[in-house]
Amino acid sequence: MAYGRLITFEGGEGAGKSTQVGRLADRLRAANLDVVVTREPGGTPGAESIRRLLVEGAADRWSAATELMLINAARMEHVERLLAPAIHRGAWVICDRFVDSTRVYQGLVGGVGIDLIDRLHSDFLGLPWPDLTILLDLDARAGLDRRHQEGGGSRFEAKGENFHEQVREGFLTLAASEPDRIIVVDAEPAAAAVESEIANVVTGRLGHLL
Amino acid sequence: MAYGRLITFEGGEGAGKSTQVGRLADRLRAANLDVVVTREPGGTPGAESIRRLLVEGAADRWSAATELMLINAARMEHVERLLAPAIHRGAWVICDRFVDSTRVYQGLVGGVGIDLIDRLHSDFLGLPWPDLTILLDLDARAGLDRRHQEGGGSRFEAKGENFHEQVREGFLTLAASEPDRIIVVDAEPAAAAVESEIANVVTGRLGHLL
Repeated sequence: MAYGRLITFEGGEGAGKSTQVGRLADRLRAANLDVVVTREPGGTPGAESIRRLLVEGAADRWSAATELMLINAARMEHVERLLAPAIHRGAWVICDRFVDSTRVYQGLVGGVGIDLIDRLHSDFLGLPWPDLTILLDLDARAGLDRRHQEGGGSRFEAKGENFHEQVREGFLTLAASEPDRIIVVDAEPAAAAVESEIANVVTGRLGHLL
Repeated sequence: MAYGRLITFEGGEGAGKSTQVGRLADRLRAANLDVVVTREPGGTPGAESIRRLLVEGAADRWSAATELMLINAARMEHVERLLAPAIHRGAWVICDRFVDSTRVYQGLVGGVGIDLIDRLHSDFLGLPWPDLTILLDLDARAGLDRRHQEGGGSRFEAKGENFHEQVREGFLTLAASEPDRIIVVDAEPAAAAVESEIANVVTGRLGHLL
């Protein structure tokens, strides 16, 4: 009987999430696993159309509470149509950002509060929690510098260094409160070194399934 | 000291909500009131962009839970930026559809449940309840016929007569449970007669403020 898993990647801008998501996927596929790579907000056509509302426009376009509703709309759509069916058929799903981003950006930094977000996620919407979360940790200034070199410029990136420092602290707070699920990986080294470290973490935590 | 009010219009397709919203607004303006006419989902540029996601596309584009999140995103935006400031400055706000539409379409017909919707509205988002709700009641078949004559064809109108009959029953159930707030007005007569009936209701319920 196949046994699917949900692995999420979290962290601030420029931490290298999408690169590392791809590299872990390659490694898991090399182990003959059914791997699905996706991202949030987005991941399905409907959720991507909601994502566009979230990432376009001015930095203060939406209040934190409105953002929370839009993000959960996209997440519900994504989970119902892609993520849950994939896990149920036994796939290993790797998702670039998930509920911990919401807990940090809207909950801790945006001021909505983590408790409300967790209740909405679990009690109201019945959404899943990750089996493992990789937190790519990087100094906020270093992350923004990487992004600027890449020519990036989403609505969140325009919010300034202090905002991104709060985001980093928020993620580290979550990791400290759930050390078994959320593993902090230093994102400062070269990509290949970070990749190896992540592979070690996944093998150590979920390796009995490999 | 000014004292704003929130009056909402509810009912199925083709019941004449937008016509009657306009006529009541004219009457209240003639009484020298500060009147704001708006609608949901929508009412502000941001909320209208969410509305487009809701009304466009196939009838089964979103699940009821996803719709609920999108609708509450639009409502939060609308209340924060337009509705609450207007009421606080003393305006009489007339809104074409509000939370009772959500309770019927997603709660009763969509199967999400009214309790979850009410808790989201009150406890989570701190959104206001109407001072008075006019329910324009019309036979589902008659409402759809009116809409087809007008050339209408939104995603909700495509859902079929049985769906619209459930919607009518849902609204009547809500009205029966809150008879002081939700007043049922027969939408079958000519528009001028319905207008008079609504004026009587508003005068009777809120007339001491006029």
